[in-house]
Amino acid sequence: MTAADFDAWAGAQLAAVEDCLGQWVPADAPAHLGTAMRYAVLDGGKRLRPLLTLAAAHAVGGLRIASLRAACAVELIHAYSLVHDDMPCMDNDVLRRGKPTVHVKFGEAPAMLAGDAMQALAFEVLTPDAPSNPEATVPAALQAKLCGLLARAAGHAGMAGGQAIDLASVGRPLDEQSLRDMHHRKTGALLRASVMMGAACGDVDAAAWSALEVYGNSIGLAFQVIDDVLDVTQASDKLGKTAGKDVDANKPTYVSLMGLDAARRHAFELRDQAHSALARSALRDTVWLGLLADKVVERDR
Amino acid sequence: MTAADFDAWAGAQLAAVEDCLGQWVPADAPAHLGTAMRYAVLDGGKRLRPLLTLAAAHAVGGLRIASLRAACAVELIHAYSLVHDDMPCMDNDVLRRGKPTVHVKFGEAPAMLAGDAMQALAFEVLTPDAPSNPEATVPAALQAKLCGLLARAAGHAGMAGGQAIDLASVGRPLDEQSLRDMHHRKTGALLRASVMMGAACGDVDAAAWSALEVYGNSIGLAFQVIDDVLDVTQASDKLGKTAGKDVDANKPTYVSLMGLDAARRHAFELRDQAHSALARSALRDTVWLGLLADKVVERDR
Repeated sequence: MTAADFDAWAGAQLAAVEDCLGQWVPADAPAHLGTAMRYAVLDGGKRLRPLLTLAAAHAVGGLRIASLRAACAVELIHAYSLVHDDMPCMDNDVLRRGKPTVHVKFGEAPAMLAGDAMQALAFEVLTPDAPSNPEATVPAALQAKLCGLLARAAGHAGMAGGQAIDLASVGRPLDEQSLRDMHHRKTGALLRASVMMGAACGDVDAAAWSALEVYGNSIGLAFQVIDDVLDVTQASDKLGKTAGKDVDANKPTYVSLMGLDAARRHAFELRDQAHSALARSALRDTVWLGLLADKVVERDR
Repeated sequence: MTAADFDAWAGAQLAAVEDCLGQWVPADAPAHLGTAMRYAVLDGGKRLRPLLTLAAAHAVGGLRIASLRAACAVELIHAYSLVHDDMPCMDNDVLRRGKPTVHVKFGEAPAMLAGDAMQALAFEVLTPDAPSNPEATVPAALQAKLCGLLARAAGHAGMAGGQAIDLASVGRPLDEQSLRDMHHRKTGALLRASVMMGAACGDVDAAAWSALEVYGNSIGLAFQVIDDVLDVTQASDKLGKTAGKDVDANKPTYVSLMGLDAARRHAFELRDQAHSALARSALRDTVWLGLLADKVVERDR
């Protein structure tokens, strides 16, 4: 398997995701709400979460129409969280994915509403109306499973809870365990859910399910460690967002806690743990998941 | 059926809803997030939406454990929308249900996160983990149906879309059709969904389903007309929120459009339409739904 093979696979997946999001994020929602939603989610971002979902679905031979919906739903949750995170009462950021943030472009109230509507839309996408042909839709039990996984990842025990800890931790010393707990929720929960929602689209035994959870946890944490590394080593124009914010805000990071070199080494250890988990899973084709674990730690933005 | 019978029924339903919300809204979510969520949703509000869900479930002989979850989920969506609506970038309100609003009490960022986590929690509540006894849970197909109804009511085509129109309409003349369209989404969609989610918990034929949709639309609109009436006729201490805000904000209302007496008459016509729809539904016991339609137009707060 070459880098070109991965790029071809990922390019095809992202084209499908972009096409679906373009159809499902409404252009005609009232009072420019749809315009703000589309601005927030279309044509931007690394799309790591949808790729994780589709790579996991590939590994388990998952139902394609379900995994595409799951991939778009996780991206909608991720994109809504960025819109709310960037608002003046949170991180007060003006630059995201190289563009003005949603509240800078559309105003604060429309940004809050667009985020709220995007969270709802994620669950709409997971519960398609029954078509005349039942084989063209997602089985109801799978719809329910996907909604449950996504809601738990997005809510108080996951992303929103992690953001609350993050808010409360500015200027306070956190030890590595507390920092890990925060990131386990804040970014880890949705990354893990991206993997598990893809896995739910196929038949997986308990051992493979557990192995994929370990994989999801490892790359989730690795992603955050690398985020902290990039925050101090990369310029804003490369990142597409404001660099150095964590240091400026006196937020605890893996770099401030471990130092730059140890943080980088830790990310590579986590990648190795992810690879080991895939090997243990005994799933038939985990090549894309393995390469995504590499991408997570090798990325430069 | 006497008023005392209704009060006894409603009291028992509300005690059950309060008990479930007390269990399901986490006290232990990190960094006071759970405290803010509980403050926003427990011990307050008229609980009209849960009562509509449980009355509709009663009318169709719906599954009790499902209708209780549906009732709590719609209330969580309603309560989160109030938290976000009250924020400085939206209505900038300081008083709600007779208490300081969530952002006044906890700060803006915690209020936004609490609202976000409450929306996610609504979908968690609708997708309970599988217990050892399958009869003690909500069938997966019903979970999916309830998630789909709620997501569509909360999102761009429903509540969030209506709020976007509302924001864009301040100081602009709206005709009755536009005002109706806004309220159909902003408050109507969730009130209608409250009824339909209750109906989904039982077996309903297409004719009864349609009749309940008409009932839901009628009381949804009647609720808003009466809201506009109360905004000009009641004092803040009675309403538990700031009165006269719509007039002050130069927002279009049914009262500004029709005059006070005509608005009141319109609300009573809508109640009559709701009663007619129930009669057409041929459902076995619509007495609570009928009395709730009366309560909607006869309320004084």
